[in-house]
Amino acid sequence: MVDPAPEHPYPDGHRPDEAPAPHALLEPVLGLLGSWYGRGEGGYPTLTGDFGYAQELTFSHDGRPFLRYEARAWLLDADDAPLRPSARECGWWRLQPDGRVEALITQPTGIAEIMVGRATGNTIDLSTHEVALAPTAKKVNATRRRYTLTDDDTLTFHHDLEAVGQPMQHHLSARLRRRG
Amino acid sequence: MVDPAPEHPYPDGHRPDEAPAPHALLEPVLGLLGSWYGRGEGGYPTLTGDFGYAQELTFSHDGRPFLRYEARAWLLDADDAPLRPSARECGWWRLQPDGRVEALITQPTGIAEIMVGRATGNTIDLSTHEVALAPTAKKVNATRRRYTLTDDDTLTFHHDLEAVGQPMQHHLSARLRRRG
Repeated sequence: MVDPAPEHPYPDGHRPDEAPAPHALLEPVLGLLGSWYGRGEGGYPTLTGDFGYAQELTFSHDGRPFLRYEARAWLLDADDAPLRPSARECGWWRLQPDGRVEALITQPTGIAEIMVGRATGNTIDLSTHEVALAPTAKKVNATRRRYTLTDDDTLTFHHDLEAVGQPMQHHLSARLRRRG
Repeated sequence: MVDPAPEHPYPDGHRPDEAPAPHALLEPVLGLLGSWYGRGEGGYPTLTGDFGYAQELTFSHDGRPFLRYEARAWLLDADDAPLRPSARECGWWRLQPDGRVEALITQPTGIAEIMVGRATGNTIDLSTHEVALAPTAKKVNATRRRYTLTDDDTLTFHHDLEAVGQPMQHHLSARLRRRG
């Protein structure tokens, strides 16, 4: 027999003008709040050829000075039809009083990454502070990420990767639109 | 102007008998799938007194050999009323062919932890493999966790912590019921 349970008393907000009021430190990243959907391309020397993918991103908050972050991608075939589930990420973006961002991002591939950076205007640049790897994870040394709000409803994303013996180089780029 | 976007083509399953079919490696942890709600107590020498909290846990999967994990807690006052949002966690539990579990768990407090362990019968024991800390995070050295399905609809949770100069010791324990 299962129990009915109360609704969570502190649901996340997904818009700056929605309860709960965003923490003041979130000001530089308020434009990210919400859900995003779009397309991207990726490649890496150790992968067999480039690939196209679709992606959902969600940023929310609960009134404290961090964003909840989740990303889900799926590969697309030559006809742009879904092929299979692909990269997933979740974590937290902590905003510091001096405007720095500390992003904790984990992936089911066994990678837990702590990135640091800053939100400058409409761009957030992040680079690796520390990477922790699960015992069976592939070797990832470092990554660089750039998120840019090119307008209120368009988010571009570029991701460079240094892994599996390869130097830092382009891995993914995507253009996402705010979901209605 | 925002775009309507297609539904995600690979939604997570929250029950063993629901699509998508769970990966065979998830067999030892199928009992965790779903949402859980319950109460817990916590304390630590560096905290001012013990505390009561309520917690939601969610385990889901997308057909691959890992669970998506999310936990949200909120503190309760002396009258058992919600006081404020508290600990949050998200991450992934990777199941290995030999039955080992690799759990990646991040917290908005700036902690990214990789734990390893095993599911034995109805109990999953995890201990720290590696901890990565955000530059401004408090110092956490290691943790130990035990999740036990005492019956199909009841999950107990014990969490020991070695942090901020204190030796490994009890930190949290909770009893959760499956949400209807």
